Amino acid sequence: MTDRLPPGSVIGILGGGQLGRMLALAAARLGLACHIYDPDADAPAKQVTSRATTARYDDDAALSAFAAAVDVVTYEFENIPTAALDLIETLREVHPNRRALATSQDRLMEKTFLNGLGLATAPFADIPDEDALVRAIAEIGTPAILKTRTLGYDGKGQVRIADAAGASRASLGDAPAILEGRVAFEREISVIGARGRDGSVACFDPGENVHEGGILHTTTVPAAITAAQRTDAVLLTARILTELDYVGVMGVELFVTERGLVVNEIAPRVHNSGHWTQDGCAIDQFEQHIRAVAGWPLGDGSRHSDVTMENLIGDDILRLPDISATGVAIHLYGKAESRPGRKMGHVNRIAR
Amino acid sequence: MTDRLPPGSVIGILGGGQLGRMLALAAARLGLACHIYDPDADAPAKQVTSRATTARYDDDAALSAFAAAVDVVTYEFENIPTAALDLIETLREVHPNRRALATSQDRLMEKTFLNGLGLATAPFADIPDEDALVRAIAEIGTPAILKTRTLGYDGKGQVRIADAAGASRASLGDAPAILEGRVAFEREISVIGARGRDGSVACFDPGENVHEGGILHTTTVPAAITAAQRTDAVLLTARILTELDYVGVMGVELFVTERGLVVNEIAPRVHNSGHWTQDGCAIDQFEQHIRAVAGWPLGDGSRHSDVTMENLIGDDILRLPDISATGVAIHLYGKAESRPGRKMGHVNRIAR
Repeated sequence: MTDRLPPGSVIGILGGGQLGRMLALAAARLGLACHIYDPDADAPAKQVTSRATTARYDDDAALSAFAAAVDVVTYEFENIPTAALDLIETLREVHPNRRALATSQDRLMEKTFLNGLGLATAPFADIPDEDALVRAIAEIGTPAILKTRTLGYDGKGQVRIADAAGASRASLGDAPAILEGRVAFEREISVIGARGRDGSVACFDPGENVHEGGILHTTTVPAAITAAQRTDAVLLTARILTELDYVGVMGVELFVTERGLVVNEIAPRVHNSGHWTQDGCAIDQFEQHIRAVAGWPLGDGSRHSDVTMENLIGDDILRLPDISATGVAIHLYGKAESRPGRKMGHVNRIAR
Repeated sequence: MTDRLPPGSVIGILGGGQLGRMLALAAARLGLACHIYDPDADAPAKQVTSRATTARYDDDAALSAFAAAVDVVTYEFENIPTAALDLIETLREVHPNRRALATSQDRLMEKTFLNGLGLATAPFADIPDEDALVRAIAEIGTPAILKTRTLGYDGKGQVRIADAAGASRASLGDAPAILEGRVAFEREISVIGARGRDGSVACFDPGENVHEGGILHTTTVPAAITAAQRTDAVLLTARILTELDYVGVMGVELFVTERGLVVNEIAPRVHNSGHWTQDGCAIDQFEQHIRAVAGWPLGDGSRHSDVTMENLIGDDILRLPDISATGVAIHLYGKAESRPGRKMGHVNRIAR
């Protein structure tokens, strides 16, 4: 399929969380429908479309019916079971592609790929066993972080290692892991990049991220970086996208250091640090992803306003009465229950 | 009900056209669900929510079930059958209220109401029969426009009367009608005003409207008016909202004349000439209406960018491939079939 999908076409989305929800809302603006596949009948994205499948990711019949009911398939999270994608790919195109997904699913593959492009990452080592950990600590030094190679997000699956004494990978069980050295950085920024079917690339302005407790707290645009750093950030993002023959939106987290930009991680999907685009740009990251997947031309991604995005985590949602009395743009995810660490929504504050 | 509806609450919307669709998309951002009631199973708004009723407006059982399934009711068009509202009002609050609806449904009542507030309108006369038409033409002069009192929109139900000779109301059949004198105006503007449950009022900046063939073609903000005219426009809108004890968003169309502002008409709903707010403001007209109806505080309605909105009517939609290659924000309505005069979508161009 190389043609653009006309209005009325259906985009299948694997995963019905807040990212899927906001993708569906963006697709609706373009006259495109979304069909949400998620095991949870109450998944946030299912509230905003008339088309949904509630089934497990190992339900071949449901997966086949889903693929048959849509024109193209994308996903909102990177940990989709491989077998599900194997099946769907026999029936429909899936974007972003498998190589991008595989690369970003595995920290070892990801860093190896990035270094292969000549891009800096944190020093790292594969940690198959305790001996490897001892050797890696000797080489990389401490403090360092032991991370599972796959399935980690928002600080989960990570162990901080303060010094060599008593260091062990036991708490990660049998999970494959890597050790990452610490990067001394001035700030963390991220670039939300998009690549279309035609190979064109459009990146949003880099945002500056502040984390709390391992979870993104705020993103501010413009980031406090130099023009040269901004250019570097955008160019390296474009390089990653092109190398992977990527179609869709990718989030690229970067450390700004004395020695230049260091890639922290890449996410093959719309990204929390790109939520500011909803109120800072005429065409936001969600629409940009939908445009790419549907074969439409990318928007230019220009920013019309300075924005600070703040996540509403857990009981932050209790501040809603106060928040709604201010001029900020509110984005809630339709989650009935608030739990500690759960992303309930976010707000975008436009600078006056 | 005076409390604000918490996230997860359900807003019932009578009518599933593009206005209902964009209301539902705005509600989703606030974590509110919408239940769409429309006789058409494929109504645009039904594509963007999991809750919908397909039934006629005289189906009492369906209306009752709809009311029972929602927390509050609003509407996206002003010609809802009275009996349907009578039934729903026994079960749920409806906003905007009946007086606002009745006033804006009937051109004679509307103009009488506005004059009663001291606001200028076009000269007008009730035209129950041909004799009344002769007398009214003698008094008001020509050219003038004969309009049905109710059910007219986008230039439908109107007859231009160039001179007294041969003037007749025959083409309107038995429909009650009024004659409206011509207003010599410099430009047409409109104010999108909102009033909350607490009586607070927030108006968006006036937009300047250009019509083609009786249908809105473009709205541009800021309008080319003086600060005094801007203030007048906002103050008179606030006066109308307050006098009607209105809750929700209203569109007020105004003629800018040598002698001041003349009210053309009021619409008790979100309005085509307010679509620019989607890309010019952090909180747009659709969210403002949802906030009002749900008992939330109004947003401030500040404009962050200058915008020109252009409607895509009928075959304008064929320009989509070209349009999507530019930086404009696209809003399509999910209508499968293009027909002459049918509103298929609109675009908002942010001024750089």
